[in-house]
Amino acid sequence: MTDPLRLGIAGLGTVGTGVVKIVQRQADLLARRCGRPIEITAISARSRDKDRGVTLSRYAWEDDPVALARRPDVDVFVELMGGSDGPAKAATEAAIAAGKDVVTANKAMLALHGQALAEAAEAAGRVLRFEAAVAGGIPVIKALTEGLAGNAIDRVMGVMNGTCNYILTRMDNAGLTYEQAFAEADGLGYLEADPTLDVGGIDAAHKLTLLAAIAYGTKVKFDAIELEGIGAITIEDIRRAGDMGYKIKLLGVAQMTGRGLEQRMSPCLVPATSPLGQLEGGTNMVVVEGDSVGQIVLRGPGAGEGPTASAVMSDVCDIARGIRVATFGVPATALEDAPPASAASPACYYLRMELADKPGALAKVATVLGEAGISIDRMRQYDHPGENAPVLIVTHKAARPDLDRALAALPGTGVVMGTPVALRIEDV
Amino acid sequence: MTDPLRLGIAGLGTVGTGVVKIVQRQADLLARRCGRPIEITAISARSRDKDRGVTLSRYAWEDDPVALARRPDVDVFVELMGGSDGPAKAATEAAIAAGKDVVTANKAMLALHGQALAEAAEAAGRVLRFEAAVAGGIPVIKALTEGLAGNAIDRVMGVMNGTCNYILTRMDNAGLTYEQAFAEADGLGYLEADPTLDVGGIDAAHKLTLLAAIAYGTKVKFDAIELEGIGAITIEDIRRAGDMGYKIKLLGVAQMTGRGLEQRMSPCLVPATSPLGQLEGGTNMVVVEGDSVGQIVLRGPGAGEGPTASAVMSDVCDIARGIRVATFGVPATALEDAPPASAASPACYYLRMELADKPGALAKVATVLGEAGISIDRMRQYDHPGENAPVLIVTHKAARPDLDRALAALPGTGVVMGTPVALRIEDV
Repeated sequence: MTDPLRLGIAGLGTVGTGVVKIVQRQADLLARRCGRPIEITAISARSRDKDRGVTLSRYAWEDDPVALARRPDVDVFVELMGGSDGPAKAATEAAIAAGKDVVTANKAMLALHGQALAEAAEAAGRVLRFEAAVAGGIPVIKALTEGLAGNAIDRVMGVMNGTCNYILTRMDNAGLTYEQAFAEADGLGYLEADPTLDVGGIDAAHKLTLLAAIAYGTKVKFDAIELEGIGAITIEDIRRAGDMGYKIKLLGVAQMTGRGLEQRMSPCLVPATSPLGQLEGGTNMVVVEGDSVGQIVLRGPGAGEGPTASAVMSDVCDIARGIRVATFGVPATALEDAPPASAASPACYYLRMELADKPGALAKVATVLGEAGISIDRMRQYDHPGENAPVLIVTHKAARPDLDRALAALPGTGVVMGTPVALRIEDV
Repeated sequence: MTDPLRLGIAGLGTVGTGVVKIVQRQADLLARRCGRPIEITAISARSRDKDRGVTLSRYAWEDDPVALARRPDVDVFVELMGGSDGPAKAATEAAIAAGKDVVTANKAMLALHGQALAEAAEAAGRVLRFEAAVAGGIPVIKALTEGLAGNAIDRVMGVMNGTCNYILTRMDNAGLTYEQAFAEADGLGYLEADPTLDVGGIDAAHKLTLLAAIAYGTKVKFDAIELEGIGAITIEDIRRAGDMGYKIKLLGVAQMTGRGLEQRMSPCLVPATSPLGQLEGGTNMVVVEGDSVGQIVLRGPGAGEGPTASAVMSDVCDIARGIRVATFGVPATALEDAPPASAASPACYYLRMELADKPGALAKVATVLGEAGISIDRMRQYDHPGENAPVLIVTHKAARPDLDRALAALPGTGVVMGTPVALRIEDV
């Protein structure tokens, strides 16, 4: 195996440029580690003339990524264009049809079409790799698929959208409102062109669904995720949660239960002293719990040129070394069709609401909760200058349907002003 | 590849029993993930009759691990006996000579003989895998060898002896003396038969030297490690370090410098708010810094039946899946002979000493430090009931040889009582 491995790279944004830089800068190291040289033979991008700070003239140019994917001098098609459909998907399909291995960083494409693409790649005897699609530079796909292969996975959790974690951290540390922190993240270029991908939790949910497929050997099913973004989180919630020893994180959780596969992406409270609670800024974290290994925590940069390119190169090096594993750890055709869990597993909840300052108001709330089968662990009433009294409640472990019944009944008490906030406290 | 992969397991202590349990409990899951069944065909241990809480009667028994290693019905020899030489080494060599792949959890054997064993295995076209030898259940060998293969590694650090971290954590949180915490760890069965393996830093140093070989493509050279245990750490140091925002950890660091390969295992101060500083009890942590990826932190259980068996099974599954990588990431014969660095790279140091309560004592110390080229960042003098005044100094970045000259000159001042404590502050 001393023939060079020849890459065709489609997409020369941040990540693609980063990959070119590594291939150029670390040519000797890569050849030593892989036992063969890694070369780029052809590239494709939207603009040919843009200065990317790296010499591209020695590579063949293709305007059309599909043409790139079919080139006979390309062994591995490296898809770094992004977008769930359109050229990325067309070129990936063309590459597989032309007998190429594929490396991609495209979580949206895989979350929506990963099942079909994996089946196609495996039917063609090719590999489809996506380390860079989840949690940036953290080698979590490899850890889960290979490093923890001896474990039945109990739970996978992750903070996998650095932008959301940045916003929540800035609200916490600098006392910014959600709107201010959002604007700051926007000014720093942290937000996707469509910011709901970030703050709506969609980007992180794309990643979670890929982890879930590997962890449980189930079909990739993005639309089964219970999804809630961070847009409704207030500085008030962050402060009150902090008072009680918690941090608020946009947390993805996948867990196989007797009621089916649970996949949630939502703002959750986690203990401030836990590794997840201590995670600040744009850093990502994935926590894997296995029946033998217990809890493994992986932490690192979730985005950026170097980290994401590092993950792409991990896949490229695997292919160069002859490491070939099914896309999601078991053959795609053998992935099971797990029913989505009808409701999230029981948990303690954080509830915040404004009560009218009337005698008996708290008692009415407690009665509604009690009637729904929800018992109260802790309650705090805060000083209030206005007419309404802010009240915080931490419940004992409760079933979500019970909680939803209680939340639906609260307005009927006539003492709850506005809509109560209910956040899950994840036991980490 | 639907033939079963047949294991011969030598050593049925905690880890070996754990491996048997996983193979039995997760037979279906393993077959699904690996595309073929994983079977145990033969076992060997010191005592045949001991009740290990697991059914062994269906496996062939060998009194002699060398005979086990040579059995024609064994594909993979799983060495879980321990001990750097003796039966473990003899059986590993026999297995390689008989054309078997080898999986081992034996850090001592690999630290001392890994170079020769890897060369032998690779010459025979076999793999020698050791995920379980470093940091228990954390898949760090895979992360470093494969997951970060696109990076030039800047530094690898780790807290990799859970017993030492347990002792230091108990001293910190419960105010125990070193002797008390040691006795407690002993009572809990955390210590090796020869406790200097733990508290002398030797066990952790074995692990560090394996990480260094992978990170830098250098020959495994255990005797090049600069080694210092935790036996001299006092509760006083832990408290004083804490006052200044630091925790004391037995930290291993490997780093390639212009002066050669630095490998150190010693008690260091790290910021209390860093992931390493926040690590409590028996948990392990490895931090890898790569030129592209930045900093990756891996955390998990460093010992115990389940976690260590999980790591063994990761290697077994790789072999079953046809994943074959050189022992240390590049062919063993291509590992380079890096000169050990003559001195540790410059760092800030924590110094604690007792000064005679005489006028001008501090000035004399400052003069000695200054003459050696060491400048002082922070200094604290503590209240003292007795005659001597405890003094803490944090230096600016200093070269270790300069510091050593200063330490040698301090007794000559006539004001320094006893031997000063000097601990490196690692920049993490």
